[in-house]
Amino acid sequence: MYYQFGKVRPHLTTRSVHPENQETPIHFISFIEPVADSLFYRRSHFPYPILTPESFTLKISGSVDHALVFNYSDLLKLPSKSKRVLIECSGNKRAFFKEKVFGEQWENGAMSEGILEGVPLKTFLEYTGIKAGVSEVVFRGRDAGVKNSQYIRFERSLPISRALHPEVMIAYEYNGKPISNKHGFPFRLIVPGWYGMASVKWLNEIFLIKDKFTGPFQTDDYVYYFQNGTSEQVTTNHVNSIIQQPQDKQLVKSGTHEIFGIAWTGSGVVSKVEISFDKGDSWEQAKLKKTPKEHQTVSWSYPMEFKSATEYHISVRATDREGKTQPAEAIWNKKGYGYNAIMQITVKAE
Amino acid sequence: MYYQFGKVRPHLTTRSVHPENQETPIHFISFIEPVADSLFYRRSHFPYPILTPESFTLKISGSVDHALVFNYSDLLKLPSKSKRVLIECSGNKRAFFKEKVFGEQWENGAMSEGILEGVPLKTFLEYTGIKAGVSEVVFRGRDAGVKNSQYIRFERSLPISRALHPEVMIAYEYNGKPISNKHGFPFRLIVPGWYGMASVKWLNEIFLIKDKFTGPFQTDDYVYYFQNGTSEQVTTNHVNSIIQQPQDKQLVKSGTHEIFGIAWTGSGVVSKVEISFDKGDSWEQAKLKKTPKEHQTVSWSYPMEFKSATEYHISVRATDREGKTQPAEAIWNKKGYGYNAIMQITVKAE
Repeated sequence: MYYQFGKVRPHLTTRSVHPENQETPIHFISFIEPVADSLFYRRSHFPYPILTPESFTLKISGSVDHALVFNYSDLLKLPSKSKRVLIECSGNKRAFFKEKVFGEQWENGAMSEGILEGVPLKTFLEYTGIKAGVSEVVFRGRDAGVKNSQYIRFERSLPISRALHPEVMIAYEYNGKPISNKHGFPFRLIVPGWYGMASVKWLNEIFLIKDKFTGPFQTDDYVYYFQNGTSEQVTTNHVNSIIQQPQDKQLVKSGTHEIFGIAWTGSGVVSKVEISFDKGDSWEQAKLKKTPKEHQTVSWSYPMEFKSATEYHISVRATDREGKTQPAEAIWNKKGYGYNAIMQITVKAE
Repeated sequence: MYYQFGKVRPHLTTRSVHPENQETPIHFISFIEPVADSLFYRRSHFPYPILTPESFTLKISGSVDHALVFNYSDLLKLPSKSKRVLIECSGNKRAFFKEKVFGEQWENGAMSEGILEGVPLKTFLEYTGIKAGVSEVVFRGRDAGVKNSQYIRFERSLPISRALHPEVMIAYEYNGKPISNKHGFPFRLIVPGWYGMASVKWLNEIFLIKDKFTGPFQTDDYVYYFQNGTSEQVTTNHVNSIIQQPQDKQLVKSGTHEIFGIAWTGSGVVSKVEISFDKGDSWEQAKLKKTPKEHQTVSWSYPMEFKSATEYHISVRATDREGKTQPAEAIWNKKGYGYNAIMQITVKAE
């Protein structure tokens, strides 16, 4: 017997109302098809910004040879690229830290994947030129509000080396339609392989700088504060996986079921997904449903016979081509980023 | 500063796809207005039954003087009653048992409240008569499937004394509209004050019996199996409450916020709701927003000033007129029913 997803209408699960933070229930993170824009997880820092004529312009200035303003129609005429990309919130799975941390209690669904179309950032910087000594590129969104008693806009930076990566783009379409209001219309920076905070929504201004950017979303939030007192900026998505079926504590009917889920990594591609029924003493390889691609999820499955009146402990771990593998326990950090411990569930056959 | 529920579209959170089990996110259990049918929590034991001509009949037989079949139009002509009623799944809050149990991992939203209209069961039994020695009334729904290797229909019983309670009704309308397909169309038994499994959906047949009913949903499921080896049938809703705002682990802005939530009980009415900021050493009374009514939730609130960079531990407990109060720890039972421990959250002001 195999489970089928039926006619249940997919939806997002609300984590907070203002600002709107919503994740995708584990049942609907299937990724066989790109997820509809309406089901793309929502993680906002401030209220949704209001659209003004200025929203349709993108200004690039700072340490450039020629400061330039691109408008929406200019931008759409530039040579574009289209790529299926996973975007995952760095707080995804935060709820699973054993020692709880403050912040949205995301479970597994603060991630989505779809086809983004846009213009490589590199293309714009070829127009503006880059002055010698530039170290970082700062991206400013139109979303704004009060943080630490100051009225600010959402800003993040990338090192110049990463900013010039050919996959970093200024996207304007999602699944063939303009990026929606809730996800950054008209422009969203896309940084494949980095956690979602890097992919600045409602992108409006870009500055090239020669020193270090120290905005609060760069040096206060989105920093791993480890237990030993050290800290490190949040960047690349950790190697990770989830079991989508069965669910933890599910009572399943006896017989053969397909255990399935997805795996992903920010660095390289997933090389294998393994499953264990003895709490990690021995591991067997799950089947990958397609050849893993960079910055995309890969579906995996494992057929399993469940015997009547028996309990099963199921663990799954992914490993990537760089040899990184999911740990038994996630590295705790004060703000709860980058959780990627092996997912473990127990299931009982009736 | 007070929180407002904004334009975020309410929805249900899926716990399982087949059968469809969905709960209401804590943000949308407000109960100021009766909850829309589409947002009423869904807890099914089997696939949704298919509507047939027989669905529109209600047969009452067994130890009666006159077995009778009522059809839909007959039933609608009988004198009806309308009442706002809370229905709560006995597995509500199951996910919070410290020692986890199998089954749907419901959090706080496996409960809903709305206005039900129907005919008291008593009225039907006056038509059929009740033979001497009747001990129980069995209710059979049209939902069916395989359980313990047998194809069965959903069946539950009530002791005759409870069946004759004037509030027990056969409902056909919810919030002024026919009860929907997903919630029992055309007839649902409503047993106010008992957990939801008693309110049999897609009600089709009623039997009066002189012995003890032993269907699996009566004597296997919906039984408290305690740690000391004793067991007890699940009946009356336990006294209970939730904090809806703020949420656990929320980072709130400093300033005055309204802490609010709801409380309810299956026996009598709620007499008080108390709040503690010192893990239960001292308690203060929250304000009830209206006079509590039987088998309905009551909203409560407490204004609180949150000081910057401070953590708050908040506990809330309800007490009912029978003197029952929420315990610090829920009574663990193997199948995870009736969880009603005091809800405790921690919040940090920025």
